[in-house]
Amino acid sequence: MEVQDILQKVKNGEMSVEEAERFLRRQPFDEMGYAKLDMHRKVRSGFAEVIYCSGKADDHLLHIFQHLYEAEGEVLGTRASVHQYELIREKYPEVIYDPLSRIIKIEKEGKEHIGDIAVCTAGTADIPVAEEAAQTAEFFGSKVHRVYDVGVSGIHRLLYNMEEIQSANCVIAVAGMEGALASVIGGLVDKPVIAVPTSVGYGANLNGLSALLTMINSCANGIAVVNIDNGYGAGYIATQINRLGVGGKK
Amino acid sequence: MEVQDILQKVKNGEMSVEEAERFLRRQPFDEMGYAKLDMHRKVRSGFAEVIYCSGKADDHLLHIFQHLYEAEGEVLGTRASVHQYELIREKYPEVIYDPLSRIIKIEKEGKEHIGDIAVCTAGTADIPVAEEAAQTAEFFGSKVHRVYDVGVSGIHRLLYNMEEIQSANCVIAVAGMEGALASVIGGLVDKPVIAVPTSVGYGANLNGLSALLTMINSCANGIAVVNIDNGYGAGYIATQINRLGVGGKK
Amino acid sequence: MEVQDILQKVKNGEMSVEEAERFLRRQPFDEMGYAKLDMHRKVRSGFAEVIYCSGKADDHLLHIFQHLYEAEGEVLGTRASVHQYELIREKYPEVIYDPLSRIIKIEKEGKEHIGDIAVCTAGTADIPVAEEAAQTAEFFGSKVHRVYDVGVSGIHRLLYNMEEIQSANCVIAVAGMEGALASVIGGLVDKPVIAVPTSVGYGANLNGLSALLTMINSCANGIAVVNIDNGYGAGYIATQINRLGVGGKK
Amino acid sequence: MEVQDILQKVKNGEMSVEEAERFLRRQPFDEMGYAKLDMHRKVRSGFAEVIYCSGKADDHLLHIFQHLYEAEGEVLGTRASVHQYELIREKYPEVIYDPLSRIIKIEKEGKEHIGDIAVCTAGTADIPVAEEAAQTAEFFGSKVHRVYDVGVSGIHRLLYNMEEIQSANCVIAVAGMEGALASVIGGLVDKPVIAVPTSVGYGANLNGLSALLTMINSCANGIAVVNIDNGYGAGYIATQINRLGVGGKK
Amino acid sequence: MEVQDILQKVKNGEMSVEEAERFLRRQPFDEMGYAKLDMHRKVRSGFAEVIYCSGKADDHLLHIFQHLYEAEGEVLGTRASVHQYELIREKYPEVIYDPLSRIIKIEKEGKEHIGDIAVCTAGTADIPVAEEAAQTAEFFGSKVHRVYDVGVSGIHRLLYNMEEIQSANCVIAVAGMEGALASVIGGLVDKPVIAVPTSVGYGANLNGLSALLTMINSCANGIAVVNIDNGYGAGYIATQINRLGVGGKK
Amino acid sequence: MEVQDILQKVKNGEMSVEEAERFLRRQPFDEMGYAKLDMHRKVRSGFAEVIYCSGKADDHLLHIFQHLYEAEGEVLGTRASVHQYELIREKYPEVIYDPLSRIIKIEKEGKEHIGDIAVCTAGTADIPVAEEAAQTAEFFGSKVHRVYDVGVSGIHRLLYNMEEIQSANCVIAVAGMEGALASVIGGLVDKPVIAVPTSVGYGANLNGLSALLTMINSCANGIAVVNIDNGYGAGYIATQINRLGVGGKK
Amino acid sequence: MEVQDILQKVKNGEMSVEEAERFLRRQPFDEMGYAKLDMHRKVRSGFAEVIYCSGKADDHLLHIFQHLYEAEGEVLGTRASVHQYELIREKYPEVIYDPLSRIIKIEKEGKEHIGDIAVCTAGTADIPVAEEAAQTAEFFGSKVHRVYDVGVSGIHRLLYNMEEIQSANCVIAVAGMEGALASVIGGLVDKPVIAVPTSVGYGANLNGLSALLTMINSCANGIAVVNIDNGYGAGYIATQINRLGVGGKK
Amino acid sequence: MEVQDILQKVKNGEMSVEEAERFLRRQPFDEMGYAKLDMHRKVRSGFAEVIYCSGKADDHLLHIFQHLYEAEGEVLGTRASVHQYELIREKYPEVIYDPLSRIIKIEKEGKEHIGDIAVCTAGTADIPVAEEAAQTAEFFGSKVHRVYDVGVSGIHRLLYNMEEIQSANCVIAVAGMEGALASVIGGLVDKPVIAVPTSVGYGANLNGLSALLTMINSCANGIAVVNIDNGYGAGYIATQINRLGVGGKK
Repeated sequence: MEVQDILQKVKNGEMSVEEAERFLRRQPFDEMGYAKLDMHRKVRSGFAEVIYCSGKADDHLLHIFQHLYEAEGEVLGTRASVHQYELIREKYPEVIYDPLSRIIKIEKEGKEHIGDIAVCTAGTADIPVAEEAAQTAEFFGSKVHRVYDVGVSGIHRLLYNMEEIQSANCVIAVAGMEGALASVIGGLVDKPVIAVPTSVGYGANLNGLSALLTMINSCANGIAVVNIDNGYGAGYIATQINRLGVGGKK
Repeated sequence: MEVQDILQKVKNGEMSVEEAERFLRRQPFDEMGYAKLDMHRKVRSGFAEVIYCSGKADDHLLHIFQHLYEAEGEVLGTRASVHQYELIREKYPEVIYDPLSRIIKIEKEGKEHIGDIAVCTAGTADIPVAEEAAQTAEFFGSKVHRVYDVGVSGIHRLLYNMEEIQSANCVIAVAGMEGALASVIGGLVDKPVIAVPTSVGYGANLNGLSALLTMINSCANGIAVVNIDNGYGAGYIATQINRLGVGGKK
Repeated sequence: MEVQDILQKVKNGEMSVEEAERFLRRQPFDEMGYAKLDMHRKVRSGFAEVIYCSGKADDHLLHIFQHLYEAEGEVLGTRASVHQYELIREKYPEVIYDPLSRIIKIEKEGKEHIGDIAVCTAGTADIPVAEEAAQTAEFFGSKVHRVYDVGVSGIHRLLYNMEEIQSANCVIAVAGMEGALASVIGGLVDKPVIAVPTSVGYGANLNGLSALLTMINSCANGIAVVNIDNGYGAGYIATQINRLGVGGKK
Repeated sequence: MEVQDILQKVKNGEMSVEEAERFLRRQPFDEMGYAKLDMHRKVRSGFAEVIYCSGKADDHLLHIFQHLYEAEGEVLGTRASVHQYELIREKYPEVIYDPLSRIIKIEKEGKEHIGDIAVCTAGTADIPVAEEAAQTAEFFGSKVHRVYDVGVSGIHRLLYNMEEIQSANCVIAVAGMEGALASVIGGLVDKPVIAVPTSVGYGANLNGLSALLTMINSCANGIAVVNIDNGYGAGYIATQINRLGVGGKK
Repeated sequence: MEVQDILQKVKNGEMSVEEAERFLRRQPFDEMGYAKLDMHRKVRSGFAEVIYCSGKADDHLLHIFQHLYEAEGEVLGTRASVHQYELIREKYPEVIYDPLSRIIKIEKEGKEHIGDIAVCTAGTADIPVAEEAAQTAEFFGSKVHRVYDVGVSGIHRLLYNMEEIQSANCVIAVAGMEGALASVIGGLVDKPVIAVPTSVGYGANLNGLSALLTMINSCANGIAVVNIDNGYGAGYIATQINRLGVGGKK
Repeated sequence: MEVQDILQKVKNGEMSVEEAERFLRRQPFDEMGYAKLDMHRKVRSGFAEVIYCSGKADDHLLHIFQHLYEAEGEVLGTRASVHQYELIREKYPEVIYDPLSRIIKIEKEGKEHIGDIAVCTAGTADIPVAEEAAQTAEFFGSKVHRVYDVGVSGIHRLLYNMEEIQSANCVIAVAGMEGALASVIGGLVDKPVIAVPTSVGYGANLNGLSALLTMINSCANGIAVVNIDNGYGAGYIATQINRLGVGGKK
Repeated sequence: MEVQDILQKVKNGEMSVEEAERFLRRQPFDEMGYAKLDMHRKVRSGFAEVIYCSGKADDHLLHIFQHLYEAEGEVLGTRASVHQYELIREKYPEVIYDPLSRIIKIEKEGKEHIGDIAVCTAGTADIPVAEEAAQTAEFFGSKVHRVYDVGVSGIHRLLYNMEEIQSANCVIAVAGMEGALASVIGGLVDKPVIAVPTSVGYGANLNGLSALLTMINSCANGIAVVNIDNGYGAGYIATQINRLGVGGKK
Repeated sequence: MEVQDILQKVKNGEMSVEEAERFLRRQPFDEMGYAKLDMHRKVRSGFAEVIYCSGKADDHLLHIFQHLYEAEGEVLGTRASVHQYELIREKYPEVIYDPLSRIIKIEKEGKEHIGDIAVCTAGTADIPVAEEAAQTAEFFGSKVHRVYDVGVSGIHRLLYNMEEIQSANCVIAVAGMEGALASVIGGLVDKPVIAVPTSVGYGANLNGLSALLTMINSCANGIAVVNIDNGYGAGYIATQINRLGVGGKK
């Protein structure tokens, strides 16, 4: 309902001044005291609200989980601990937990997965972050191809898998240590590459800052970067891009 | 021509062993001694090679410009100086130079501009970077809307222009100082936001590093970041995304 | 008693040279061996001394607590552990501990709360720091409004609460991750904003340094910044400002 | 005019739907193509818009200066060059320029200066930043006391001037090198201290970052920090505080 | 024995060629396989070798302790754990351990303490580092005055104790957080000040780096800085200076 | 087999098109689902693949260990925990574990060790990293001399051992704290020095970054640097250099 | 004159109350409007005030120079430009300027130089900083030995000069690049070493920060560090130490 | 001549005590007042001393150049300006200057070049640093292959040239921006790779620090790193390695 519509209704007497004011000032979120859940989010952005579980108190987590589940019929949580999984499982035995990516979820059945996102990692230690990206994208309805352990120190492993990577609408390149994977992929595909630096490594890797700098300074075109270990963020924006490639939101 | 095709031709005697070997090993670039121009680039990626003019010697610049112009009939150069403009203008009087964005170009006439990219800036000092992004995207065939000087310290200026921003396939958010613009836009649109930190500011802005960190740590979803002042990179990846939104490369 | 008064008394023989010297050199603190408690503090600044509990040895903490309690009839301690709470409770059963803000206190009854300070947070994870700020301000006699979880990625939540924020004498803006909240609030109010970066976030948040840089570089006017997670410091200076707004110390 | 008032007028027929919509969506800034001047600023915040001259193109600067002058009858510009002064003086011979603080202004005559702000510097090299702070505060109607060259390496100079500093509503402490001045003042006054780190120094001063860190980590209470060399920002927030101390905006 | 003496002896036949070569190449340390103990150290520098206990394996620590004890009749160890204390106490029941400074030692009786070193701290949390400095200096024969909790946020505490500080041959200033203590003392004494930054603080203190930068950038003269928390190093160089003040090594 | 050979065979009908294509595209690694083991590595580089044990899941580690053991008859693992040692020992009782360097291995008997690499450390705390380097080099067939605890603060210890160091084909200099060892050795030998910064130290050592910077900025020639604590990397490149010195790979 | 003396005089009527108050509150500096010259400095510290010329306005510099010259009969200025030299020379033709160290001075004739300070540099590029240190120490009455270009990459040059260095009361070690000189000297002398990092070098020297970190982390004892390029500060504290070694101030 | 020989001669009376002492203490460098030229260097290391021209005074440079030329008959200088070239050319018309690499030299004729070093660059902007490396290696007698503009964003350019790179004894990988080249080459060759980060790039490249971090954190084996833009250092150590590969120094 647009502003003009409302004003017209007020003029016509179909709506009282008080109603109109309430509407124009309406709170598009649920006040939970300690939090304001954004319930208009799915309408506004095409993505339902997701729970960042890390550090949430038990009762808050359970409360929010329930709230979102009732509204959407499915819930996605990231960075969940085993303890949090056990907590939620007591109430929702159907909940699924992946200890690698630390994703917890109840997902609607029969969800269609559209388009194509390729998720690549440099090494095996980058897989937890990659899985957070992949499973986030899948939850939001994207089809995902996983191409793991194709780091640049053995470039033949990457080249061998290029066809699969080149056919995606968007590539997620996950790498720690020196983070060179994104640049090499960026030079070989014609679609956007979302680079995810990871904290994998030691010493001068500066907990992932080094990989982040590598990716930000990439000499290849078509690369943009998200925060260190932010698989969720990569899966989210890759889904936005993938939806554009498919031809519209689902 | 695929590997299989070539091998088939060799088998059929349509191609000699030597020819086939040459093809399989063919150099997909022009060796210029000091540089290797990537002439297959447009085929591979849908984007012609672009000249990063800063620091190029006069004769190298002229030589490369000519080489690309002959191959494509148009050329885009970034970070060009007035001196470089005058140098090229002597040979190509039709060349166009924009001192603000420092873009130099000869562009084919009647180019169609498709889709929609919104380029936003926080302040007026961010406009040179924004123009590099906008003109790059336009050169590669994107339609661009400019929404400048809508920084978060006067949020009403941004809100007033939201409709225009929300209708784009991709938003480029250009901001220096504290770089908060990307987060606010990210919360208001449902399309990918490419954040460009700029070196605008002083003191603890650390020449743009502070804005970069702000954008990388954004609490909003759907944001990915390019290098400080990298308008070109933002215009490039935004064009890739915009093409997906329109439904295919042009 | 001013220097001139003392000298006059010496001249008049009302005070001996020794007495005068002692007075002029008097120690305005209590020597406890390991510490020098500033007992003139309340007279000098209008604020009683507060205990920073973190890392204090059990006997030192207890000793200082008792010393201050006897002098003032109330005590405020910050960053207290559960263990420290239990320790003090044994002797002072009336002591109150808030595990969220980690504030421990015995407070005089019937304290009047004056003026108006708004304490805002970007997310729910910033609440512990915000509570340290709010409860510090309340202990020192300020009235406080809490406006939590109004981060810029959902700007409507902030705008919805603006009236409440705009009516305060001073606003405390608490935010981690990219810390953009302070800039947006700074552009919407006409009173001083004290910005508190928090260590909430991960990766390139650099344990709060990123949010600190955002706030220091803010493009909005009327913002000044305290240390990362320093809720106490924000509550203190906000109370100073609030007292000015009310019209004098209480 | 509040939303309710407008809606009431629409109901009463005193205002057409179109008028009301225009008003509710009205642009509270002047669109100048390259900039959006915030003309409601004075109403909203009690401070007129100020020009940050550094890097502005000649015609833009002149245009903005004229625009603000016509609206307010006075203008304040910061970080102005001699060239910019000469440019503006051609059109406005009454304009005043201070090469030390680089402030340029036309100011209404007979302006009343209220309250009391003390501006202190550690050394003589910090004076340009201090003057930017002092003259900004004066332009906005504050009375200012200057106490310069009272750095902590000669603490007697500071103690000698304490009475003057202690009587202010707000103290601005400007210091480069190790930036210890703010802590010492913070311990001696009962009013808010706005600390301004400067880039004065060399070597490990990191262009002022070192002084900024000192001030942010201050062990004294009642201190908040603005950006390196940001005299303007300090003068602004100090004026907000000073106005509270005086008892209301002027 | 100088080179010339040896050669003369060889010439005179008082020393064989082999003996002389052995001497000229003699190993001025004890090879222990995993370590080379510097047994000439006391002769060369006037200070016996000290054990940095942190991270030493049990058998290595015990072995080195015994080796040094047999050579010197006394031993000093720094950064020792309670476990290491218990380990050594089994063999040397007379060993003394201070859990605050983490110093472990057997010291010769009746040691004379000469000269005067003042050890000052800003707060109580800096005392462990200060004690490492003080006890190191005492072990090496210096007289030490402790002046603790005299940080600059309550400058009167420092001024009250100045006479005691000013009479020392060398002052050690120990401070964390913003580390301003060294500058203020530097301006008040005419002897060298050794500044020791500590890791005390939180947030932007960067684990002591901030205090280190403050001290390195001090505007006061006569200040030099050692590593963060390096009480031992400060006690060592202060003893060197103190010995000069007394008039020779003891 | 070269490309030309394959094509010739295709022409001659000795190889089908399908076989040739498969060969040209052959995967030179073993796909294990979660990892791609580089089985051509020894042929390509003269070094078999090594396991970086840290963080590997139990079943993955065991699986990879077995896979490599079957292929090569020996295996080297770095950064192994005691738990991982016990895990592997259950299946391979002959496995050897060194808790100092955390190297785990099964090594072929009677391996010849060629050439000469000198591994030096500044202190005893650097030995774990040095042993990782030394044992890596030995596993790959290099003869190694260990020269430990020869840091520059007692330069005579280093000079005493120079002959041994100077006779090596390559020197590995391992040092934490200020990391000056590499520069001094670099000035005394005529062979390449591989510098390994370690995280040994505290305070401003920045976990080894300080030593890394020292080594990278070395005023001596013939020095190149690997990552902090990267003993393995140093042992690897030193073996490459040593092999060149001996006259070819073994 | 002590407080007690004054009070006694007041009691005795030898001093009026007003006189006594004036004295107790007397300003121990000359107020010059823009600066407060510390005229008691020589009495308090044994060192006259020195002018840091860099950035001083012409008239201020001249004014201060004259003021100090009249008070002391000699003046020392550091970081002076050729222009400033010419300015002062007009009025004081006897002024001496050293373009290498950028020291400007008028010095009393026949000054005695006592004790012994050794000033060492790693390379020739460090000499300007070393000369600032040496000439400062000489101005304040110290005897100085210069030992230049003895960096650790050719350790024989340093060892050859050790006797000269070992006989000093204090050693100043000036080094850029990796800054290892201080550690090596620290291990060879038994007197305090003042380490001066310089900005000499390039790349990862971070304008001297790398050398500073090296020196702060030195594994040798008896080393303390001043700011990057701070020759003046080193000369000052070395003079304090040298005076102690000689047996009192001169 | 060994120590034992000298002592034997003294014993035999073939050498006086004075002669022997002089020899044992002999200064293996030429004292030039401001510098100590290392004339034993070629004997000791196989490399003659080289002049780092940047910042050298005209007369010093000329003097040193002459000194080295007379000793060796050839001279190499790095980082020379055009002015310095003109200065030297006046006296030595045969001197050769390369403005790209800024190398100045007089070289003996008919020098043999042995072995094989491959010098690779990522882009054309890295060529000046690469030429410094290549020409240094050539001056010291190495044969060099240049493979320029083979950055990883167009990986086919690199693969096309791999054979040439793989046949070298040592590879120098020169790259700015994200610096990924070294990792990719490291995975493709079996010889040592010396990585040279360059300051090429902008924004978050941090003047080359970002490329340095990339290279230090490389996931590939056989890589060691020199300082940013340090082509000379890379050419030097690569020559050491190349000489080992050829089978001895020349």
